[in-house]
Amino acid sequence: MIRILETKERVIADNDAVARKTREDLNEKKVFFMNLMGSPGCGKTSLLVNIIPYLKKRYSVAVMEADVDSDVDAKTIQDLGVKTVQLHSGGLCHMDADMTARGLEYLGLEDVDVVIMENIGNLVCPAEFDTGAHLKVMILSVPEGDDKPLKYPLMFQTVDMVVVSKKDVCEVFDFDSKRFEKNLRTRNPDAPVFYLSNTDKEGVGEFADRLIEKIEEFRKS
Amino acid sequence: MIRILETKERVIADNDAVARKTREDLNEKKVFFMNLMGSPGCGKTSLLVNIIPYLKKRYSVAVMEADVDSDVDAKTIQDLGVKTVQLHSGGLCHMDADMTARGLEYLGLEDVDVVIMENIGNLVCPAEFDTGAHLKVMILSVPEGDDKPLKYPLMFQTVDMVVVSKKDVCEVFDFDSKRFEKNLRTRNPDAPVFYLSNTDKEGVGEFADRLIEKIEEFRKS
Repeated sequence: MIRILETKERVIADNDAVARKTREDLNEKKVFFMNLMGSPGCGKTSLLVNIIPYLKKRYSVAVMEADVDSDVDAKTIQDLGVKTVQLHSGGLCHMDADMTARGLEYLGLEDVDVVIMENIGNLVCPAEFDTGAHLKVMILSVPEGDDKPLKYPLMFQTVDMVVVSKKDVCEVFDFDSKRFEKNLRTRNPDAPVFYLSNTDKEGVGEFADRLIEKIEEFRKS
Repeated sequence: MIRILETKERVIADNDAVARKTREDLNEKKVFFMNLMGSPGCGKTSLLVNIIPYLKKRYSVAVMEADVDSDVDAKTIQDLGVKTVQLHSGGLCHMDADMTARGLEYLGLEDVDVVIMENIGNLVCPAEFDTGAHLKVMILSVPEGDDKPLKYPLMFQTVDMVVVSKKDVCEVFDFDSKRFEKNLRTRNPDAPVFYLSNTDKEGVGEFADRLIEKIEEFRKS
């Protein structure tokens, strides 16, 4: 046990150094980088499909699709006419700073304003690995349940914004937004919460507006 | 990158040796051990709540509830009157053989016929770590989508049975069982699939019956 944990600590220290370097490079080039996380099937790709049209009006957007295997999501995103790269994690359950940096290099940042990375579907390890992103956003889908901040503390603690997707099925799954926010606030006092549905697109505009605000803050800094 | 992968390979080799030892001990004591896996909120605890009454009629049952943090699930299971232990993974996204063995030791196997472990909610790493279980079952919930075998290949490949939960909302989420099974069969040619709903309990009995068959096969072997 102890050996595994020590290995992990060293890996994370190495990781954080690479992530800092990535963020410095991005700052210099004025490229905003967002890391999108959430469980399998929570709606990460669907949210990207819905917000990219808002972002494309203002910025040159690029997307990195991380997956253990397959390229189904990258194909979906490429159809929106944005620069897309598929990253295979080789069996790992998260993207680390090194894999992310190589993805950014492959993508090329010369004519890019905003990069979004869709992380591997997982509520545990992606929260531990700084990728160099300026903004960490997570999606929790209603069917997963309003108790998840109690069970996956680090994810809810480290993110800057929380999206609750599939809000159209709150009643079916007895998802109580008050109970959810009470649980969330034990982990994260500040992160704003956006309730939305990727199917009927209700709430998508509000999230896109706030994201654009964050991007503008970054560009003016 | 290469260094991390080498570390991982060594960790997995060590893990598999401990898992083999666990399985030998369980065989000797005639204790059947099932490892239950699936995404956050897919219905692992709800399935246990529904099948334990079937199992309790025939066997002395014990449950190990693994979580990154919290003990909400262990409390739910304890209310069913079965021996329960809560395992905290200390931030790790899966249960390894060593943590499992310590859980089994703490639980005590003298008067137990069947042990079920609810693994951490995650479709990636739990698939890589043999825990010593005789049967690996995974749950995929309908809202996660019928494309998941393409994205989380190892999990679908390594399990012995697949449960599709929340089947009452197939239409809402456009989940096509034919498409799902076509995707599943690219990873796993044999694992039987059980469609069920933990809410109205449809299909739960069929799964419990098959599980009892497996337990009986083990006890007669």
